[in-house]
Amino acid sequence: MKHTRRPIGIFDSGLGGLTVFKELRAMLPGEDIIYFGDTARVPYGTKSPEAVKAFSREIAAFLLGRKIKLLLVACNTASSLALEEIRSMSPVPVLGVIAPGAGAALSEAPHGGRVLVIGTSATVASRAYSRALSGGRVRVTEKACPLFVPLVEEGWCSKPVAAEVAREYLAPFRGKADVLILGCTHYPMLKNVIARVVGPDVRIIDSARAAAQAALGELERRGLLAGGSRGRSEFIVSDAPERFSALALKLLGIRTGKVKVKRF
Amino acid sequence: MKHTRRPIGIFDSGLGGLTVFKELRAMLPGEDIIYFGDTARVPYGTKSPEAVKAFSREIAAFLLGRKIKLLLVACNTASSLALEEIRSMSPVPVLGVIAPGAGAALSEAPHGGRVLVIGTSATVASRAYSRALSGGRVRVTEKACPLFVPLVEEGWCSKPVAAEVAREYLAPFRGKADVLILGCTHYPMLKNVIARVVGPDVRIIDSARAAAQAALGELERRGLLAGGSRGRSEFIVSDAPERFSALALKLLGIRTGKVKVKRF
Repeated sequence: MKHTRRPIGIFDSGLGGLTVFKELRAMLPGEDIIYFGDTARVPYGTKSPEAVKAFSREIAAFLLGRKIKLLLVACNTASSLALEEIRSMSPVPVLGVIAPGAGAALSEAPHGGRVLVIGTSATVASRAYSRALSGGRVRVTEKACPLFVPLVEEGWCSKPVAAEVAREYLAPFRGKADVLILGCTHYPMLKNVIARVVGPDVRIIDSARAAAQAALGELERRGLLAGGSRGRSEFIVSDAPERFSALALKLLGIRTGKVKVKRF
Repeated sequence: MKHTRRPIGIFDSGLGGLTVFKELRAMLPGEDIIYFGDTARVPYGTKSPEAVKAFSREIAAFLLGRKIKLLLVACNTASSLALEEIRSMSPVPVLGVIAPGAGAALSEAPHGGRVLVIGTSATVASRAYSRALSGGRVRVTEKACPLFVPLVEEGWCSKPVAAEVAREYLAPFRGKADVLILGCTHYPMLKNVIARVVGPDVRIIDSARAAAQAALGELERRGLLAGGSRGRSEFIVSDAPERFSALALKLLGIRTGKVKVKRF
């Protein structure tokens, strides 16, 4: 198979990475995309670096076996903890979501500005965003918001309880940030709620969109874009395919068709 | 080793089963207890029956290898979906939390009374409590409350947001039940919040206590009680031992000492 015709691989701990898939699908309608969600072991955000690395290696090996031309790690936790390891085992380019999100934040923040990063416990503990934003141009604060993921998975993004949870985590930061990075692929689904709590003067960076743009740029530079408009999408999970399919439709309007199962 | 001196094995998807451990430890201070928490794959409540069965078999085999005299499945989801399978592979008695909780509810409910069972999505979908309560003596309603587990794991049991989540799930049942079964081992940590929503006339059944009593009864009948008062407690998890230890202390006041790790 010509390299340009090979699929793009995306993986996430579960369905959060579908926000990245959706952006990428819109930008690149002609590409074949394989999405893997590790629904048997979701969430990653409360687990140890060792566990996240082991899970990520297994999934990367599986997707590389499918002859992908680029691997996009659409999970902030896996990007924070396992990106170098995945790169060392991959013959094709591997992109994460941290560097694109950090890059977008730096382009929006004023010099000396304040960047607030929100993410899972594991992402925040890794300080991956602080490293990606280092250099002294901005001041960085990171805040873990572990309940946001289950809130999204429950489909409660527009219930009053979502606003209450967002206030609990973020009210202390109101008016105290110039840029906010949504450092978890689930969080774009709570963007409006989060925006109301932090206030209108905070620019919100959606790392899903930034990651999709980075993938597009990488394929362009390497001459690997497929072109066309009839790309196929394939969804594979490690557990509960019907639940995945139902939530993809409910939360993001994505029709997955039949979802396959690969157990580890 | 004499059978009476062998340890009791308890397992749960994570730390919720510590509510059962705590009751059992208080009732049986002389017993050695090994607690296993599957923190690498928690939660079970949103996963498929196949995944929960596979995880449960692995853990049961591991604990049986430790020469336990009784296995207590302190996870409602695993009890709902995997109890018969674990029994078929075990030479020692295996108890779950469903039958004890249902038994306690039947002893509290008036004839023709209304029993409300709350649990994870997987427990409710299995209808295990409805089967255990069948026979026509009571009317049963089951309601899944998936956000309660992450809320407890976040340590937010007494924050306003806990009351808001409880209202979202349970306000429609206020005054409409005689007995409420806390069908998840995390839920006793939210008992006060839940009680305020459903109202003062609802008797709340804590399946953790009922399960510990059932284990005590089973050991008594078989002449397997160790006696004494200096039992050892051993904690083993599949990931993130420090987090487990910190939450055990924060949520339940349990000092675990060094927590071991067994990865699958």
